[in-house]
Amino acid sequence: MIFFRNDYSEGAHPKVMEALNTTNMKQTLGYGEDEYCAAAAEMIKNIIQRNDAEVHFLMAGTQTNFTAISAFLRPHEAVIAPARGHICVHETGAIEATGHKIVAMPTDDAKLRAEQIDEAVLFHCDEHMVKPKMVYITNTTELGTIYTKTELLEIRERCDKYGLYLYMDGARLASALTCEENDLTLQDIAKLVDAFYIGGTKNGALFGEALVLLNKELMPEFRYILKQKGGMLAKGRLLGVQFEALFKDNLYYDLAAHANKMAKQLREGISALGYSFIVDSPTNQIFPIFPNNMVAKLEEQCTFELERAMDETHTCIRFVTSWATPEEDVYKILQLIKELQ
Amino acid sequence: MIFFRNDYSEGAHPKVMEALNTTNMKQTLGYGEDEYCAAAAEMIKNIIQRNDAEVHFLMAGTQTNFTAISAFLRPHEAVIAPARGHICVHETGAIEATGHKIVAMPTDDAKLRAEQIDEAVLFHCDEHMVKPKMVYITNTTELGTIYTKTELLEIRERCDKYGLYLYMDGARLASALTCEENDLTLQDIAKLVDAFYIGGTKNGALFGEALVLLNKELMPEFRYILKQKGGMLAKGRLLGVQFEALFKDNLYYDLAAHANKMAKQLREGISALGYSFIVDSPTNQIFPIFPNNMVAKLEEQCTFELERAMDETHTCIRFVTSWATPEEDVYKILQLIKELQ
Amino acid sequence: MIFFRNDYSEGAHPKVMEALNTTNMKQTLGYGEDEYCAAAAEMIKNIIQRNDAEVHFLMAGTQTNFTAISAFLRPHEAVIAPARGHICVHETGAIEATGHKIVAMPTDDAKLRAEQIDEAVLFHCDEHMVKPKMVYITNTTELGTIYTKTELLEIRERCDKYGLYLYMDGARLASALTCEENDLTLQDIAKLVDAFYIGGTKNGALFGEALVLLNKELMPEFRYILKQKGGMLAKGRLLGVQFEALFKDNLYYDLAAHANKMAKQLREGISALGYSFIVDSPTNQIFPIFPNNMVAKLEEQCTFELERAMDETHTCIRFVTSWATPEEDVYKILQLIKELQ
Amino acid sequence: MIFFRNDYSEGAHPKVMEALNTTNMKQTLGYGEDEYCAAAAEMIKNIIQRNDAEVHFLMAGTQTNFTAISAFLRPHEAVIAPARGHICVHETGAIEATGHKIVAMPTDDAKLRAEQIDEAVLFHCDEHMVKPKMVYITNTTELGTIYTKTELLEIRERCDKYGLYLYMDGARLASALTCEENDLTLQDIAKLVDAFYIGGTKNGALFGEALVLLNKELMPEFRYILKQKGGMLAKGRLLGVQFEALFKDNLYYDLAAHANKMAKQLREGISALGYSFIVDSPTNQIFPIFPNNMVAKLEEQCTFELERAMDETHTCIRFVTSWATPEEDVYKILQLIKELQ
Repeated sequence: MIFFRNDYSEGAHPKVMEALNTTNMKQTLGYGEDEYCAAAAEMIKNIIQRNDAEVHFLMAGTQTNFTAISAFLRPHEAVIAPARGHICVHETGAIEATGHKIVAMPTDDAKLRAEQIDEAVLFHCDEHMVKPKMVYITNTTELGTIYTKTELLEIRERCDKYGLYLYMDGARLASALTCEENDLTLQDIAKLVDAFYIGGTKNGALFGEALVLLNKELMPEFRYILKQKGGMLAKGRLLGVQFEALFKDNLYYDLAAHANKMAKQLREGISALGYSFIVDSPTNQIFPIFPNNMVAKLEEQCTFELERAMDETHTCIRFVTSWATPEEDVYKILQLIKELQ
Repeated sequence: MIFFRNDYSEGAHPKVMEALNTTNMKQTLGYGEDEYCAAAAEMIKNIIQRNDAEVHFLMAGTQTNFTAISAFLRPHEAVIAPARGHICVHETGAIEATGHKIVAMPTDDAKLRAEQIDEAVLFHCDEHMVKPKMVYITNTTELGTIYTKTELLEIRERCDKYGLYLYMDGARLASALTCEENDLTLQDIAKLVDAFYIGGTKNGALFGEALVLLNKELMPEFRYILKQKGGMLAKGRLLGVQFEALFKDNLYYDLAAHANKMAKQLREGISALGYSFIVDSPTNQIFPIFPNNMVAKLEEQCTFELERAMDETHTCIRFVTSWATPEEDVYKILQLIKELQ
Repeated sequence: MIFFRNDYSEGAHPKVMEALNTTNMKQTLGYGEDEYCAAAAEMIKNIIQRNDAEVHFLMAGTQTNFTAISAFLRPHEAVIAPARGHICVHETGAIEATGHKIVAMPTDDAKLRAEQIDEAVLFHCDEHMVKPKMVYITNTTELGTIYTKTELLEIRERCDKYGLYLYMDGARLASALTCEENDLTLQDIAKLVDAFYIGGTKNGALFGEALVLLNKELMPEFRYILKQKGGMLAKGRLLGVQFEALFKDNLYYDLAAHANKMAKQLREGISALGYSFIVDSPTNQIFPIFPNNMVAKLEEQCTFELERAMDETHTCIRFVTSWATPEEDVYKILQLIKELQ
Repeated sequence: MIFFRNDYSEGAHPKVMEALNTTNMKQTLGYGEDEYCAAAAEMIKNIIQRNDAEVHFLMAGTQTNFTAISAFLRPHEAVIAPARGHICVHETGAIEATGHKIVAMPTDDAKLRAEQIDEAVLFHCDEHMVKPKMVYITNTTELGTIYTKTELLEIRERCDKYGLYLYMDGARLASALTCEENDLTLQDIAKLVDAFYIGGTKNGALFGEALVLLNKELMPEFRYILKQKGGMLAKGRLLGVQFEALFKDNLYYDLAAHANKMAKQLREGISALGYSFIVDSPTNQIFPIFPNNMVAKLEEQCTFELERAMDETHTCIRFVTSWATPEEDVYKILQLIKELQ
């Protein structure tokens, strides 16, 4: 069975495993107060050139999102998000469970537009309505699209205008940063957002996300919330060790670049065979539209997710590549599609 | 520096690491729907002889507690717990953050008594007060004490009488089950409680707790809550792999037995040197009382936690042993205490 | 200044005040356990011909909605509502503050369609998403529209199909029931929903809403939640006394009929003058579209709410009539509009 | 039946009803933005000599407490309270339902001691525990006791030392301020606390509490929280009208003084007959201890609450007097006790 289901089908990249093995019997303090976490945080702060940043390591994406949002907002404050955003759809109401409304804005490509921030803020005009205080975006988005520097600047401008925090969910940030169309760097992002997280789970770690706080207002007593929401790992070192390994020798970028390369080959191959996509995504998630009978046949040899029915006879599916995708799997699946035509 | 600070100072036991390494490149479905989780759940159900049980794997103890409690209770329902219980003291209000009051009952040895359940239930007599609906106990407790079969039966009887769920936090359950004074088995526990968790983090896993649901009322749609509270790991397989390794060839018990043996040597050695303890704990946490100047000297060569000041000149400290404690560390620290007398 | 701003600009209808004055020095038990609440509940149960119903009296609409929803749902369960619904827009995130997501469905006339329930349920397909468990509708809606019996039956059918509770927010239920287009009775509603509330605040009471629980599953220990959410009034009698007065001699219906009559005169008058409305609303809220300069002039002599800008030169406003609206105010405002043409 | 059950057995004081009747048909804006609320707020600010204060009118005590606490605290912050405090016992977990832990300190007389604040703060030493950020006290307490100026100053001093907000629940503040032992004024309280509320429900209003915010940190966007928690009454004017009536011509104090006078006669009479009290309470709640058979006999002619069993043959009961207590009821009950001896 060929796996194009997601980018977390394996364990960790061998270099990450090696780092865990090597450090395994080292004794450290718990709860992220060890030397590995300190070193990994330092590496990240150096890369983004922000010594004033605070870096916290959490276990998973949903956890990171609801911990951050519940730490940042007062009870009546809401977060503006694109309607396809992970927090809107795929977190089983985790944000609402911490008490906050998500103001979901419709979007075709999962990207929030700056003007939608105007719209959301102006609609919420008095105390009978929630008060938008934060903007949530993902990069790459849930549809594999990315934000350009210009777009991010426009969003930042709106956030400044209305006093909103800007938070970027970077579950697949590496894929965004290493795709050909990208013009943003980690430093740029660190300048433009108030907080963001660097995803580990979907780019070679066993698990783990590095939450970076840049706005001083968001920092006080964050570790209390981290603990309360279940995000303070006893053996916090595991997160430090993994992020150190990922940021050593460019590994983090190399892994994502491989995933993107595999996705590009898939995309171009599928396109050459005459199929279209619901969205133009330059990263490691692509969304081709196939006849239903082909989808059924593909499912016999390959595992992937169904995105949605397009009409009676066509379905959009999702292929995801990763650091671990073998080039031959791409070749095989393209062959298969060709044969099934 | 000698570590008696806690039982999560290292990574995982080598056999657990080996299992993670061996399975690392295997591709599986995510979110705990893989074959390793299925196998580990099956092992646990076999051990407890309850095919009707449901096993969920979570990442950490606080997370397991608040996920379970928020899944089990309606908004006005409360959980009775001994005042020293982990949920009362060391979870930064995680239970309250999900909306539930803890009815904390005072206790010297961190154990809840059956009569305290009567007391708590009878006190809450009408709708102006919360309604106790659940009892939370830890085994071993936060002071290293354990429940006897008789005590657990008495607690169960009260739970039946008042319609309460009984939940056991087993962060250190292995240490309880393998200590000399213990007369409970996993099967007994599975018969007497409505839900409990088998701790991995403090007994040789990198991380992970196995939550076992026994009462059918507690099962419906539990995975929704698991996801919402951040406890559904993308690479859920990591939990399955680890628990399989732990329950293979008796490893889980052997590790705890070692920890207990080390604690016993420490306890007997300290006792022989003339010092007393705040509580009689037969497991891997012991609480000796030393003169302050000895505590200060010990801290130069050993890391441990301070429990509390006993008087102007004496302090109670906590020594914790683990599967990784070398026998020579016990010897060394006893020597050191002797020299410091 | 003429008031068409809302239906709660005055105190209570004189007969309600009289009842409060007459009973003022009577001594009763607190918290709704008095004879007036008992009598009013009995009256309501008789009217709806449901002796098995449970009636609770609360102070206000938002309070009633979040108390009911938080009592009815488990943490991962969500409520489907039309996007214009009061809980979606005008309760400052009160529902989310109790932990629940609202699945908001777009609508032009503030009414939810049965097919939207299909859509919402089918979209939420697994445990990574919230689980819709309840449908929230208002009658009259926030745009003054009403549900027909056929529409309500269709919604009920979908709720049965998917195992959803159906809840009707009746803040302006009296206006719905007494308008000409209505074909529903209180008894019908009581047959078709699982719970609903009969609004007092907007139909002649000082304050107060009567929440009627019809589905047995929703009843257990409701008073605990009522207390926890702040809805258990110490002098609960005030609610019983008022609802008794309202349901005596048909007063409740007469008051709403007057409001509707005033709205109808306004609507027909405005229509005769050549203006249109954003929606065809047969009840006590109407939404005419006027040129901006007329709106500005009207504001000098009349107070009302702005609904929204229609284009550069036209604005939709809201006129609300009530039991207290004098016929001459309707005449005056129509005259004014005529003069301003 | 003689009522000594509580101080909210009747409707409102006739002068309050008169004010409601007189203003009944006046048209105003809703949600507390009317001229009556403005005037009442102004009266209160004048009395406490704090023009910089913010006054919000809410409907009930539990609602006021959870609205204030949830507005003031971040998710990990906790409130220190005496274990007998209303929020600890009689609000069905309303505070926890908003996510916050109450750190309950034991007390015999329901009063918090300054040293208990030290104790509570020092115990919570790191991020694994909640962070105390607020102190909650009631005056009069649930046992009818009061705080002296010296005691309140000591508590304030601790709050300053640890950066805690001090909040006083004044459900029965009038009774405290008008009892003979009292040495505090409303101005003193306004100087010493960060927020407090002036209770209306238990001192002659139909319902209503005036929450006074004194610390600027607690004010921003409070009305959003007020709305979200259900505390923003549509006909907010009702609260303004009532508080205006209460603070006119000293009515508020006169009513409480009468209640205290009745309680004093009861207390002295019971004492003269040879019975003792569980606590020395100088206000409108007294707690005599009677033989069980006398309690049974008293219950035939008088309604009151049982406080608790003292031993096999004696029970402590609670008598509450109010502005509406007739002097002859006091005489009658004392006669009855005498006869029953």
